[in-house]
Amino acid sequence: MKHYKILLFIADGLGDRPVSKLNYKTPLEAVDKPNVRELLKSSLVGLMDPISPGIVAGSDTSHLSIFGLDPKKFYKGRGAFEAIGAGARLKGGDVAFRGNFATVDNEFVVKDRRAGRKIEEAEDLVRELNENIKEIDGVEVKFFHGTEHRVAVVLSGKGLSDKISDTDPHEVGKKVLDSHPLIDSDAAKRTAEIVNKLTKRIYEVLSQSEYNKKRIEKGELPANIILLRGASEYEELPAFESYTKLKAAAVSATALIKGICEQLGMKVVTPVGATGGLDTNYIGKAEEAAKLLNDYDFVFLHLKATDAASHDGNVEGKKYAIEMIDKMIGKILDRFGSEIVVAITGDHATPVEVKEHTGDPVPFMLYVPYSSLVFDDVKDFNEREARKGTLRIRGLDIMNLLLNYSYRAEKYGA
Amino acid sequence: MKHYKILLFIADGLGDRPVSKLNYKTPLEAVDKPNVRELLKSSLVGLMDPISPGIVAGSDTSHLSIFGLDPKKFYKGRGAFEAIGAGARLKGGDVAFRGNFATVDNEFVVKDRRAGRKIEEAEDLVRELNENIKEIDGVEVKFFHGTEHRVAVVLSGKGLSDKISDTDPHEVGKKVLDSHPLIDSDAAKRTAEIVNKLTKRIYEVLSQSEYNKKRIEKGELPANIILLRGASEYEELPAFESYTKLKAAAVSATALIKGICEQLGMKVVTPVGATGGLDTNYIGKAEEAAKLLNDYDFVFLHLKATDAASHDGNVEGKKYAIEMIDKMIGKILDRFGSEIVVAITGDHATPVEVKEHTGDPVPFMLYVPYSSLVFDDVKDFNEREARKGTLRIRGLDIMNLLLNYSYRAEKYGA
Repeated sequence: MKHYKILLFIADGLGDRPVSKLNYKTPLEAVDKPNVRELLKSSLVGLMDPISPGIVAGSDTSHLSIFGLDPKKFYKGRGAFEAIGAGARLKGGDVAFRGNFATVDNEFVVKDRRAGRKIEEAEDLVRELNENIKEIDGVEVKFFHGTEHRVAVVLSGKGLSDKISDTDPHEVGKKVLDSHPLIDSDAAKRTAEIVNKLTKRIYEVLSQSEYNKKRIEKGELPANIILLRGASEYEELPAFESYTKLKAAAVSATALIKGICEQLGMKVVTPVGATGGLDTNYIGKAEEAAKLLNDYDFVFLHLKATDAASHDGNVEGKKYAIEMIDKMIGKILDRFGSEIVVAITGDHATPVEVKEHTGDPVPFMLYVPYSSLVFDDVKDFNEREARKGTLRIRGLDIMNLLLNYSYRAEKYGA
Repeated sequence: MKHYKILLFIADGLGDRPVSKLNYKTPLEAVDKPNVRELLKSSLVGLMDPISPGIVAGSDTSHLSIFGLDPKKFYKGRGAFEAIGAGARLKGGDVAFRGNFATVDNEFVVKDRRAGRKIEEAEDLVRELNENIKEIDGVEVKFFHGTEHRVAVVLSGKGLSDKISDTDPHEVGKKVLDSHPLIDSDAAKRTAEIVNKLTKRIYEVLSQSEYNKKRIEKGELPANIILLRGASEYEELPAFESYTKLKAAAVSATALIKGICEQLGMKVVTPVGATGGLDTNYIGKAEEAAKLLNDYDFVFLHLKATDAASHDGNVEGKKYAIEMIDKMIGKILDRFGSEIVVAITGDHATPVEVKEHTGDPVPFMLYVPYSSLVFDDVKDFNEREARKGTLRIRGLDIMNLLLNYSYRAEKYGA
């Protein structure tokens, strides 16, 4: 059979609940989606639990699952994935830490665990650290700025271990802790030693920084230390192409998602004007996805705007993002409607009235460009109508369904 | 409660899609099935994924799953199951290989990887090998003919390993490879040595064979070597009776399925005239199943004709096989209708227009001979109607459902 190409469209935090302001419709119910409705005539529909029923998924665990990698196996180190989200690209064996810029006195007693939280100079301080601390005892050190006071620190080298304790005392008025090995191994002993030397070096560099001197002049707390916690050893993710046989590209503007896609070996593109917010360049992203479909077997299109609006409790914003999703789908399907299998879903629910991720299932649809299938007779794509479809799947099933219906699956057995 | 007996009817490759020649009905939809319809009044109905949604199952992995054995755990060596399909009965620790009859020159350079593919004398050559090569270094050797040029070779003895490389160079013009150990173990070293000695012995026997001399006289390529690949150590399957407490029998004419049933310790019967094709003795199989139901708790009835027709793209053939299934069901239910629980399904879908296995779910029905159950109000047994039932299960659930509704399940917990 002809092999079809594949588009996987994930609208972050898409799933929702009836909203009082929308007369108890969900945002997906409240928006007319003519392009999506057209696809439904040739689709399987249902509900998808990103991990399993009731589990509140993060975007990292859910994307691993959706890409076919069981997070129970592949999401060992949360720290490693936070580092990826902060821009780190990790190799197997790297040890990553979550860290805070914080304020200590010259006895290393913590005065503020977040150095006031808002640190305008954070990027500059991270640059200074990277310029001045490149290695400790032959182990490469890299710093990455996350948001506000948050930093990721990555150690790269042989014989490291994440079985070491935090330097973060988790309390003001206490001294920065010495890291110590949590198991009796040379690697853990060595890593703890490196972390302790690193903490002193960080203090040396930051306490001398002109940026901190200016902060003190302005009456602000100096960000003169990084408190480290959650050491986590990165285990190499398999290449997406190795287990799917798909040449894959991703369109995303969200650091964590881009990071995961890059670690999986996908080509990652962020079109001009794509922001990860409601003001993103929706059509630019759709056009980029369409362009990539010429050269790749599999294109992953990620939109953050739905989640951003949900976290802000912005009902109209979420409705607007959904309208734009329909236009994006129209744009791509105009060109590739007869050539691609398309899955549309969210990576988890973020109900606008909850403003946080929840473990509700997410509507899922799978369009095929051929007519010889028993389709689900579902008229609209939303939380209520999706219940009438036949699919009740998990994130881990999505790639298998896409490979099956694009005639790209390998037989399991004989 | 009374313990009921169980009939499990698997029509191989039963699942299908709307077929243009059938006015976009599926074969199951296009055939009137009065006996099955009668059972539906007292049945649970739904869709069954042999492995999990989207996975394209082989008949081996799906039957393991349907018999309650997770293929992720029990389907480690494909080679072992191919050997079973070729007639081998394996013990735990046996190492099985897939092999090709091939043609080499006297320097062991491969001239044809399949010795021309059609080898009329294959059975004779295998018999000669079995007569002349019974052991190497105290390890028992057995040869089994599969189809065309395909052979399975099984080594039985202590201290063998499947961590050894192929002798098949996978290319014409290259020399037959020496097998070498893939890990540093005595078992792997020893097994590789045995395989290398075996390869030379095979050449000695086959190059002297009168059958090959005649092939050369006829201008055909001699089948004078076996190229081995995919060494696979068989891990003993548990006895079906040990984990189900069911005394079990199977009716099948298909080598692979018979092999799996025998390895599980079932009594296996192939009635006169049962062929594994469309010309099989349908009623003879049903009669045999009915007879076995007198003496066994569980009878597995397997029909290959549906899959054979599907692989050939033979729509009318598949319809005919389905008509006969309904007659088979009628035959058995006439006698045991009030005494047995019956599941009817396929081991996977093989849509006639695709001609290959696909990962689509398969219609599933479970009849119980008592009236005190909330039944699914489903009027016909096919891919479309089954969506209206309540079951959405996996192959691994089937034995549990059968045990439950026959009042034979053991409580899990207290």
